[in-house]
Amino acid sequence: MTRGSTGRSGRRPGSPDTRGAILAAARECFAAKGFDATTVRAVAAAAGVDAALVHHYFGTKRSLYLAAVDLPIDPGPILERILDVPDDELGASIIRHIVPIWDSEIGKAAIAAVRATIAGPTPAAMSGMFTILVGTLSARVDVPAGTGVTRGSLVATQMIGLAMARHVIGVGPIASMSVDDLAALVGPTLQRYLTGELPNG
Amino acid sequence: MTRGSTGRSGRRPGSPDTRGAILAAARECFAAKGFDATTVRAVAAAAGVDAALVHHYFGTKRSLYLAAVDLPIDPGPILERILDVPDDELGASIIRHIVPIWDSEIGKAAIAAVRATIAGPTPAAMSGMFTILVGTLSARVDVPAGTGVTRGSLVATQMIGLAMARHVIGVGPIASMSVDDLAALVGPTLQRYLTGELPNG
Repeated sequence: MTRGSTGRSGRRPGSPDTRGAILAAARECFAAKGFDATTVRAVAAAAGVDAALVHHYFGTKRSLYLAAVDLPIDPGPILERILDVPDDELGASIIRHIVPIWDSEIGKAAIAAVRATIAGPTPAAMSGMFTILVGTLSARVDVPAGTGVTRGSLVATQMIGLAMARHVIGVGPIASMSVDDLAALVGPTLQRYLTGELPNG
Repeated sequence: MTRGSTGRSGRRPGSPDTRGAILAAARECFAAKGFDATTVRAVAAAAGVDAALVHHYFGTKRSLYLAAVDLPIDPGPILERILDVPDDELGASIIRHIVPIWDSEIGKAAIAAVRATIAGPTPAAMSGMFTILVGTLSARVDVPAGTGVTRGSLVATQMIGLAMARHVIGVGPIASMSVDDLAALVGPTLQRYLTGELPNG
């Protein structure tokens, strides 16, 4: 963490506008390049501060991302609850924890925000959420080793489509179905993706 | 089909602008109310012509819709090819026929168009496509009777999410996976939705 020339813009390290400038720069970088391609160093440069200061304020890139997108819900504890079941109940657990969040007022606002980003030139800002959610899930189900990312990504395909069908497009029975019925119908799909035998992994 | 007072706006039945006026009215109605809630009669009234004239030009509501949304691909023959397999191969058949269309230049343009509608106040214009695709599929797999719409809608959830993951969000392995691998991984999900035993149908 060398101090670059961009770290000398005159902002006082402790001032509130430094924190705000870092968050604004992070939003721009994540939106333009996505989560994976954005570095803490690039955010620091864009904000005109030292990378060490970004780490001091926000910790990891993941924490910086979560602060920048300013989610109304912290995904950490939700992920913990989802994963707090035996492996063979993970599929239903995902449905039972995620769908009620979508269905809540907070969830509806979040889905509206996501819809707005989909029309943009690139919904790269969303990519961080997938990296975090899919990454956590993938680590849990990486059996045989190396299949975890594919498994987590397949779960993402089903859950993205379920959210779209239930809350954006309004596909007939899906929009009005109970969480129990969705867990029974869609849970086994997720379960197979997570722990089933996959052809060529 | 009585002639309403709206049928007397002075447009000549055979003129090109009558056809155009009907299409413009249809686009407005489908966008505002969706496919199911739009009637040929309402489109005729909005266009200032007689409902019989709309039927004369465009046949059914479905044909009117397809003309109004002006798809670059006619879904009819594609649906025929998808369905031209034994029941137990339908899941893979959907993947093998649909994904290459998405991946084509025409498909990319169509997905871009859909992205734009998702951000709008209501993507109701998309609803007709789902009604047509899901409706055709549902009729084929309505076993036991009454489960077809749920089966078709579940397929829609997976396919919407697969399109989003592959072409909009760019979810890691999904975006670069071969059609063969997708057919092997996601085909069984569709197959279960279409012909598997569903809890409480």
